[in-house]
Amino acid sequence: MALPSLLTPPPVPVELYVTNRQKLLNSFRQHLSDSSRPLQGIVLLQGGDERTRYDTDHLELFRQESYFAYLFGVIEPGFYGAIDIASGKSILFAPKLPPDYAAWSGEIKPLSYFKVVYAVLHKLYPELEKPLLFLLRGLNTDSNNYAVPANFEGIDTFVTDLNTLHPILTECRVFKSELELALIQFANDISSEAHVQVMRNVKVGMKEYQLESLFLHHTYMYGGCRHCSYTCICATGDNSAVLHYGHAAAPNDRTLEDGDIALFDMGAEYQFYGSDITCSFPVNGKFTSDQSLIYNAVLKAHDAVILVMKPGINWVEMHKLAEKIILESLIEGSVLVGDVMDMMAARLGAVFMPHGLGHFLGIDTHDPGGFLQGLGRPEEPGLSSLRTVRDLKEGMVITVEPGCYFIDALLDPALKNSKTSKFFNVEAVNKFRGSGGVRIESDLLVTANGCRNMTNCPRETWEIEAVMAGSPWPIVSKSISI
Amino acid sequence: MALPSLLTPPPVPVELYVTNRQKLLNSFRQHLSDSSRPLQGIVLLQGGDERTRYDTDHLELFRQESYFAYLFGVIEPGFYGAIDIASGKSILFAPKLPPDYAAWSGEIKPLSYFKVVYAVLHKLYPELEKPLLFLLRGLNTDSNNYAVPANFEGIDTFVTDLNTLHPILTECRVFKSELELALIQFANDISSEAHVQVMRNVKVGMKEYQLESLFLHHTYMYGGCRHCSYTCICATGDNSAVLHYGHAAAPNDRTLEDGDIALFDMGAEYQFYGSDITCSFPVNGKFTSDQSLIYNAVLKAHDAVILVMKPGINWVEMHKLAEKIILESLIEGSVLVGDVMDMMAARLGAVFMPHGLGHFLGIDTHDPGGFLQGLGRPEEPGLSSLRTVRDLKEGMVITVEPGCYFIDALLDPALKNSKTSKFFNVEAVNKFRGSGGVRIESDLLVTANGCRNMTNCPRETWEIEAVMAGSPWPIVSKSISI
Repeated sequence: MALPSLLTPPPVPVELYVTNRQKLLNSFRQHLSDSSRPLQGIVLLQGGDERTRYDTDHLELFRQESYFAYLFGVIEPGFYGAIDIASGKSILFAPKLPPDYAAWSGEIKPLSYFKVVYAVLHKLYPELEKPLLFLLRGLNTDSNNYAVPANFEGIDTFVTDLNTLHPILTECRVFKSELELALIQFANDISSEAHVQVMRNVKVGMKEYQLESLFLHHTYMYGGCRHCSYTCICATGDNSAVLHYGHAAAPNDRTLEDGDIALFDMGAEYQFYGSDITCSFPVNGKFTSDQSLIYNAVLKAHDAVILVMKPGINWVEMHKLAEKIILESLIEGSVLVGDVMDMMAARLGAVFMPHGLGHFLGIDTHDPGGFLQGLGRPEEPGLSSLRTVRDLKEGMVITVEPGCYFIDALLDPALKNSKTSKFFNVEAVNKFRGSGGVRIESDLLVTANGCRNMTNCPRETWEIEAVMAGSPWPIVSKSISI
Repeated sequence: MALPSLLTPPPVPVELYVTNRQKLLNSFRQHLSDSSRPLQGIVLLQGGDERTRYDTDHLELFRQESYFAYLFGVIEPGFYGAIDIASGKSILFAPKLPPDYAAWSGEIKPLSYFKVVYAVLHKLYPELEKPLLFLLRGLNTDSNNYAVPANFEGIDTFVTDLNTLHPILTECRVFKSELELALIQFANDISSEAHVQVMRNVKVGMKEYQLESLFLHHTYMYGGCRHCSYTCICATGDNSAVLHYGHAAAPNDRTLEDGDIALFDMGAEYQFYGSDITCSFPVNGKFTSDQSLIYNAVLKAHDAVILVMKPGINWVEMHKLAEKIILESLIEGSVLVGDVMDMMAARLGAVFMPHGLGHFLGIDTHDPGGFLQGLGRPEEPGLSSLRTVRDLKEGMVITVEPGCYFIDALLDPALKNSKTSKFFNVEAVNKFRGSGGVRIESDLLVTANGCRNMTNCPRETWEIEAVMAGSPWPIVSKSISI
């Protein structure tokens, strides 16, 4: 019998956080130096706090705030962390736990424990009394929420700076170190393996959530991943056209039917670092010709983008490239009629792919830093959904996730609009309505000369059909010449 | 091969919520009538809202607020619900969703959908303009937090009452209907089965979280339970003496060792209604005599309480009964020396069982209503942790969860205290230090004449050893006479 998993959760070296802090220090000092400011002050962050559900004592499972996790790797709630700009020394402030904590929640770890574990110092230096505090405040461009700066009793007696830290720290997070990449790679490895496991076990008559359960179990049991990067989207049939399916109001509860397409967007998080992977496939294991048409349109776009991605390439251009390839395939498949450049000018691509091509990935699924200060968000349909408009650079990790969906709420207005209605073969489009959509999503590392795909799932239709029929993955070629 | 599960998730009839609302209406009208107040006004509750994590757009999986779930059963965020006291009619206010919701999160359901699904009316009656609003505000005695009353733009133009609703609605929740009991029973059935599944798969060398993963998978895959009642406690070895082990700072990450006791406190939630079950067993499948001593002390207490539970019995007395039986067993096992009544007077039981004997269970794991207004919390050690001090009544569901732990933070002061030190056989106690503890927890329904155990797990040491060795559960007697 095949082993359920070939993977083992890797250890997380504390050097990862030391490296992250050193990177911030270097950037921060450079910035201060460039602006002729003194190289001193304290970077102060407040970690996340545990939350109860509504008025009850039901504790939500705590997950550390991402900027704090990036710099300190602390898994516990209630901490503060500081970095002294001048000396480069770090200080962790552990929460004062109530005396009955030991009986209810475990041994109160001495301060020295945190010193060893997080490799930081635990003492403030006397000369640092009342230093300038650099606090974290800035816009998250995905949520439009602002980071909440650290706060504590007595902070009003300090001088604080709310503007300097956020853009510098955010930019540090955009470029991944080797140690960070190892964790993102493991999250990808275990999640890729779990996707294959799901494909192998899909059967008509199952509930969507049963596949979610299989994914969660595989990544936790064999990968030690207690959290996912996001709520699993296990969409089948028409649900595959609902971009954020799977939430509480649409809880993966449909029964799989023969002929359905499945669109499963699921990614595990390993020690804060995430993955974000989508596989689309027919639940009965065999693509119909209509399903192949849409699937291959998306796969062609996915592969074409990966082929040209490298430092210097602009992400808006990649989005347009994916759109163009999908539209061309729809023309070839007689779903659309007309000139592809005219369609591009009419922004027809956004009717079939209303979301952006991809986003940075790291400690957050939608990792921050997509818009450098001054870079605006495009206003055109489709492009307005982009989570970054930047030029690619080495060390970025970004998802490539083209999709093609048949969404009534987008098709109906496009069919009524005189600028776009002429492009549709109405009969063909109507045939596809109700069949849902396809998305293919991989996580890409931008390298010095190109990019590296960190995701390893069956992508070609024949690979998917073979794996669903029981072939091992990766598929070993049988035609080895002697 | 044995089937992985014999269970199927049952449908949830909307009558469940109709019954809950009718019960509230009856109690509410009775209360108004008793206080000579007019039988009119509107009960208004605000459902829970979806939350993002910190400043990001990471959406936490939504779980409805429990009072709102009790009355309306709505799984979606952003609702308000109202009940007109005079007519008894109910009104649900659906959130106004943004136009792009249809593409991102699914079809915008017409208001008639909610009418059908939740069997409530969706129109305010014209004569109800500016009625008295009864809002939910009151203390949760487990968290010491207050329920937050409904709020909306313009509420200041209404007359509001913040005192009447909370105690009446809370008391409704204390007594479970048949329809509620069916869901609590299913949550118990699937969780009991999952506990057995975990016992069968435990092996020295595994990680604690792998057993958590097995439990979660079994209850979701076969029971459709997406949520647990609380974060799984998968404690082995010394961790079994940490009462709330399993949280983010102690994340079930120990490796199981030969000779360990395991204490697994895990319960699934089915359609809002929970279960709360603890099994303790040796990870290698065979109880040592020391483990048997402690285990049987706890089991004897568990069984004795269940034997005498019935309407009219006071819960504080049940707690003391459990304590007394555990202390007697420890005397019998030569861990303690002296007279058990002297030990009871010195509150020695609280050293070994610092938590309360049990708590109400329902839509919340610690279901509210444990302290009727005016009933105070005892101050003595152990008793001060009780989550209810009430007399039992038919229809209550309450956990029975005696435990016996060897916790240094409690033993050390007791050994130093002249009032308690004389009771200890220090050598024997020290032998048990580091071995952790045992808890056995079942969910009991108080019936007209006694109680019914809704939990069905192996409890006798021989049953546990047999099931861990592969026997089916329930164990079928082999000595059937012809």
